[in-house]
Amino acid sequence: MQDYIRKINYYETDKMGITHHSNYVRLMEEARVDFLEQAGCSYESMEKAGIISPVIGIECQYKKPTTFGQSVRVCVKITEYKRVKLTFSYTMLDENDQVVFSAKSHHCFVNSSGMPIALSKHFPQYDEIIKNYVSEE
Amino acid sequence: MQDYIRKINYYETDKMGITHHSNYVRLMEEARVDFLEQAGCSYESMEKAGIISPVIGIECQYKKPTTFGQSVRVCVKITEYKRVKLTFSYTMLDENDQVVFSAKSHHCFVNSSGMPIALSKHFPQYDEIIKNYVSEE
Amino acid sequence: MQDYIRKINYYETDKMGITHHSNYVRLMEEARVDFLEQAGCSYESMEKAGIISPVIGIECQYKKPTTFGQSVRVCVKITEYKRVKLTFSYTMLDENDQVVFSAKSHHCFVNSSGMPIALSKHFPQYDEIIKNYVSEE
Amino acid sequence: MQDYIRKINYYETDKMGITHHSNYVRLMEEARVDFLEQAGCSYESMEKAGIISPVIGIECQYKKPTTFGQSVRVCVKITEYKRVKLTFSYTMLDENDQVVFSAKSHHCFVNSSGMPIALSKHFPQYDEIIKNYVSEE
Repeated sequence: MQDYIRKINYYETDKMGITHHSNYVRLMEEARVDFLEQAGCSYESMEKAGIISPVIGIECQYKKPTTFGQSVRVCVKITEYKRVKLTFSYTMLDENDQVVFSAKSHHCFVNSSGMPIALSKHFPQYDEIIKNYVSEE
Repeated sequence: MQDYIRKINYYETDKMGITHHSNYVRLMEEARVDFLEQAGCSYESMEKAGIISPVIGIECQYKKPTTFGQSVRVCVKITEYKRVKLTFSYTMLDENDQVVFSAKSHHCFVNSSGMPIALSKHFPQYDEIIKNYVSEE
Repeated sequence: MQDYIRKINYYETDKMGITHHSNYVRLMEEARVDFLEQAGCSYESMEKAGIISPVIGIECQYKKPTTFGQSVRVCVKITEYKRVKLTFSYTMLDENDQVVFSAKSHHCFVNSSGMPIALSKHFPQYDEIIKNYVSEE
Repeated sequence: MQDYIRKINYYETDKMGITHHSNYVRLMEEARVDFLEQAGCSYESMEKAGIISPVIGIECQYKKPTTFGQSVRVCVKITEYKRVKLTFSYTMLDENDQVVFSAKSHHCFVNSSGMPIALSKHFPQYDEIIKNYVSEE
């Protein structure tokens, strides 16, 4: 699994001169989308199959500021998967491999009517993939 | 018609210390939504009726920077309305009534299948309202 | 202390049709800025005094989706204040007083060189204000 | 000169199901930053030298919607360069080389005090580079 790498954009900084903290939540999504695509269960294919995976919680620790011009690397893991619940963990590193940010996001699975669904029952192929990617923190 | 007033948010500034230019395009949308609601043809009611009004062009002039803590006032006008095309103009003023930004946005009307529709034919009530609000620049 | 109220913007929604989860982090900031201004220690005055208060952590629970056109109300509290650390809690309600979101944000105080500073020592007037606003969760 | 390529993010879509029009202005900035870096006069190096290049105007034409999962390619050109003024043009293409968006952005050069500066006089090395990249539309 390849880490997700990208540069911080100018419009992501704020008047403190650093990346605004809200933008890390967007970087988490980018990295998660990339992870799932690499794993073979992309957001697009899941949405086409009628599975939506909303965020139900996040926890973020900001350790070191970053800014425009820096390149960050996000390492994503699935740390928990139980029936209708899924947890990702994220570690973001700067160019010197210093941890600048770490986080978790919690998700559930719902169908297009918003009803919770168990992948194991309705989408065994996705269930299988996700189970294979669960790793320790 | 009341002008649209709101404060610049911290997360809308960039490392130059000023409101990032992309955020004015969002302020234009906020002011346009407010204008249409005041006029009696809100986005929500139009979307419920099946009318979508995508942006097909914008032109923006940035005249003076603004920043966090400032309150800006946006004056919106409809300056052109022809069959399936609609043009709004925007003038943004700071607390001292200095013009900080001016812009136009061009829109068309489409139905949920993306086909252009003439309000005059299919939605005479909205057509009537918009015609009443066309003003000189 | 007045709650912070504002409408969800069109540009804050995503293709799921709901407010994107990253935007709640921005709403938290807006509500926090408003709270501090009401309390008499605004961001601007603190930044002018040389105090910066970066976010060092957030925890968010998404309970019910919101979308464009809805008006949300954010109730802010200071739930912890110890030397260089400050915690805010946020409860966001929809028009029917249903809780749609709750969160916490953790902050420290640093000077313009990025060194942690104790308000009690260097800025007793701000320390006094914040102490007065600490409330139970 | 390599075109700037990247995927549309989920958080960049809106409830219409398409990339929100304000995000193209951010994509223009990303592509411009990339262009200048390739040209050898990166934003970072110019900012370090004390040159700021604010946006003074933009004009955008939205031709075809894009959405999450699509990859867009932005072709950037410098189409005008006169003393303190610089104009970039942008053509954005989808995976099938269909033009989805075209735009221009106008910039000036100012020093850290906000005074207009002529690169030719104060920064001949940057002036030389930019002159070399001016091309017809």
